Amino acid sequence: MAPLETYAITLPVRDYTPRHFLLEVDGKTATITLNRPDRKNPLTFQSYAELRDLFRALQFDTEVKTIVITGAGGNFCSGGDVFEIIEPLLSRDMPGLLQFTTMTGELVKAMRACPQPIVAAIDGICVGAGAIIAMASDLRVGTTGAKVAFLFNRVGLAGCDMGACAILPRIIGQGRASELLYTGRVMSGEEAERWGFFNRLADAGSVLSEARKLADSLSAGPTFANAMTKRMLHMEWDMSVDQAIEAEAMAQAVCMKTEDYTRAFNAFAAKQKPVFEGN
Amino acid sequence: MAPLETYAITLPVRDYTPRHFLLEVDGKTATITLNRPDRKNPLTFQSYAELRDLFRALQFDTEVKTIVITGAGGNFCSGGDVFEIIEPLLSRDMPGLLQFTTMTGELVKAMRACPQPIVAAIDGICVGAGAIIAMASDLRVGTTGAKVAFLFNRVGLAGCDMGACAILPRIIGQGRASELLYTGRVMSGEEAERWGFFNRLADAGSVLSEARKLADSLSAGPTFANAMTKRMLHMEWDMSVDQAIEAEAMAQAVCMKTEDYTRAFNAFAAKQKPVFEGN
Amino acid sequence: MAPLETYAITLPVRDYTPRHFLLEVDGKTATITLNRPDRKNPLTFQSYAELRDLFRALQFDTEVKTIVITGAGGNFCSGGDVFEIIEPLLSRDMPGLLQFTTMTGELVKAMRACPQPIVAAIDGICVGAGAIIAMASDLRVGTTGAKVAFLFNRVGLAGCDMGACAILPRIIGQGRASELLYTGRVMSGEEAERWGFFNRLADAGSVLSEARKLADSLSAGPTFANAMTKRMLHMEWDMSVDQAIEAEAMAQAVCMKTEDYTRAFNAFAAKQKPVFEGN
Repeated sequence: MAPLETYAITLPVRDYTPRHFLLEVDGKTATITLNRPDRKNPLTFQSYAELRDLFRALQFDTEVKTIVITGAGGNFCSGGDVFEIIEPLLSRDMPGLLQFTTMTGELVKAMRACPQPIVAAIDGICVGAGAIIAMASDLRVGTTGAKVAFLFNRVGLAGCDMGACAILPRIIGQGRASELLYTGRVMSGEEAERWGFFNRLADAGSVLSEARKLADSLSAGPTFANAMTKRMLHMEWDMSVDQAIEAEAMAQAVCMKTEDYTRAFNAFAAKQKPVFEGN
Repeated sequence: MAPLETYAITLPVRDYTPRHFLLEVDGKTATITLNRPDRKNPLTFQSYAELRDLFRALQFDTEVKTIVITGAGGNFCSGGDVFEIIEPLLSRDMPGLLQFTTMTGELVKAMRACPQPIVAAIDGICVGAGAIIAMASDLRVGTTGAKVAFLFNRVGLAGCDMGACAILPRIIGQGRASELLYTGRVMSGEEAERWGFFNRLADAGSVLSEARKLADSLSAGPTFANAMTKRMLHMEWDMSVDQAIEAEAMAQAVCMKTEDYTRAFNAFAAKQKPVFEGN
Repeated sequence: MAPLETYAITLPVRDYTPRHFLLEVDGKTATITLNRPDRKNPLTFQSYAELRDLFRALQFDTEVKTIVITGAGGNFCSGGDVFEIIEPLLSRDMPGLLQFTTMTGELVKAMRACPQPIVAAIDGICVGAGAIIAMASDLRVGTTGAKVAFLFNRVGLAGCDMGACAILPRIIGQGRASELLYTGRVMSGEEAERWGFFNRLADAGSVLSEARKLADSLSAGPTFANAMTKRMLHMEWDMSVDQAIEAEAMAQAVCMKTEDYTRAFNAFAAKQKPVFEGN
């Protein structure tokens, strides 16, 4: 059995210096940058685990309200490295393999469980686990030059990786998701926008700043309510319509007890712009 | 605890004169018009409750086969009124807030539970609870000038209002829905058509007549079967594929025992257009 | 009670000669051709049953890795024949009707349960049960001249036929699916591509060869993994996100024990193209 990588991250996350990627907290927005640009930012056992543990820590961080994730050097992420991940997996036994696939799945779970909306800024290569990280984000700003590929079947694997068979169809539809997962082909940046995978297109030179601007606007919003939106989007995934309506009645009643709700009314009554504080 | 508004509506609905909006039954189609055009047709505690009770009454009305919902004066609906709803909610205790969010949710439940397909005719402002009413309809005809905004987070609240986190992603996809719910931004009429929120675009001058024409064509169809379609779209929401197939086998077998099915065959055999009667 | 049609199909499927349509196995790809071109390839009680039994047999066929389904003579399928299906159903009692709707549903279940991805090649008329067969396929190549109509309500029936109220909304969105199912109107080839029903458009003269090329590329891929993708797309339909992630961790770990995974790595390391064998 392979040794289990874990990273003890104490709060606040702002003070943590990751070993395998960059982290910058600016105001209420944290930016994670995959940073091995010479290799197009591949993932390793270590970076998977550290990302998982960072998103888990963010669940309890009260300072960071929105997260941006991007890659350095004009590419988002080339996925699991061939020699650092694929090759060593070949000699693992089944418990060792399940340990790996469980860990990668835990990264997506942590991304969906943290209260902060996640905005991915995507240029260039965005494939394999990189495409999954983009998919598992809440919002995606991309470029026309982005190449997104769920290329698992090109390396002999199934499209069902880290939740793709459940999540991708909900974003771009069952037919288009099926094609990408069965063929591993590239979804162009233009297709990604047209199909609803990218929320918007930006130039390569401004994709990160556009994503930051969007993230900062969320950070300046009613962040307690934003976290509730994220939780409900997650919880209602497989509820009936009536169950979802009941659950939202409770969730929204909770939000009506926040001061941000009062602040919004007061600002409106005074013909001002509300200043939200996330409580 | 705030007093609970209820409206006793006896059948047929055709004979009911609402206090807070307009209702017109023409043939088999009922048209509901939100009618405070000077304020862009906001909702109040009373109009929410009366709409809920009207849709509940329509569940048992055998005369009305399709429903059109629209707003007077070039706007659909500006949502919950700031001074008539948002302000009084600020001083409510939690049971009082839950009473409100439950009531608004019950409106959407009633819209989904009534057997009549609902066609929304949407021009101008369609925001907050107005956007929800549009979303909770079955079909939507809109204009390029329509501005649809799930603007809850702009008033300090969460996007999870009246079922939005469950229903909106199914209409326009998870990514686009997430953006609208996190940011509260306007979806333009053009986006609404492109993303599948609007079924079609019409001119401002003809959007209501287009919606009526569509509704009348449904009213002239096999309305027992249409009601079954609506029920199954609702019921199958969170079924497995195999469960849905089983459920549809039963539902369609029921429809094969209607006279409309015989009428369709007879008309076909006689090279005529079938005249359906909804039984 | 109508006699139950069944077809005993022994393996390999390659050696089976269907009575009601054409079957050709070329390499690892099977092509099914609905073949009553003078009537636009309608279905009958017999062809429904034989299709169901063929897809059930394909579940255990280890030779066929991908399936193409198409229609002869420039049309896909005109659905249940008016005089061969609709008319005789009129005199059936309820158990007899349920026998029929259960059988048609079993065809879709068998299409979703077989491990082979199914590629539909769609030109011309594709209506009623024909539209359902297209919908129940995994991938769809169509033409601009294709006319896809879920026309059940035009024959007095409900849109809930063979899983349509569950499956169609996942492919093209709830609003667009609702329109097609309530009105029975034609979805044009162009709309089908724009809405994600068709994966791509091809000329009428090349739509079958394009579908075959796509199918052959899947057959040349890691077919054990492709089958896992299909199974998980099916299983995760109504799972929560977290359940789906857990299930995929197990499914992908299984795929990592295939030789195709090793072959992909070895080919990559040798800068060659992998030759997959489906084990």
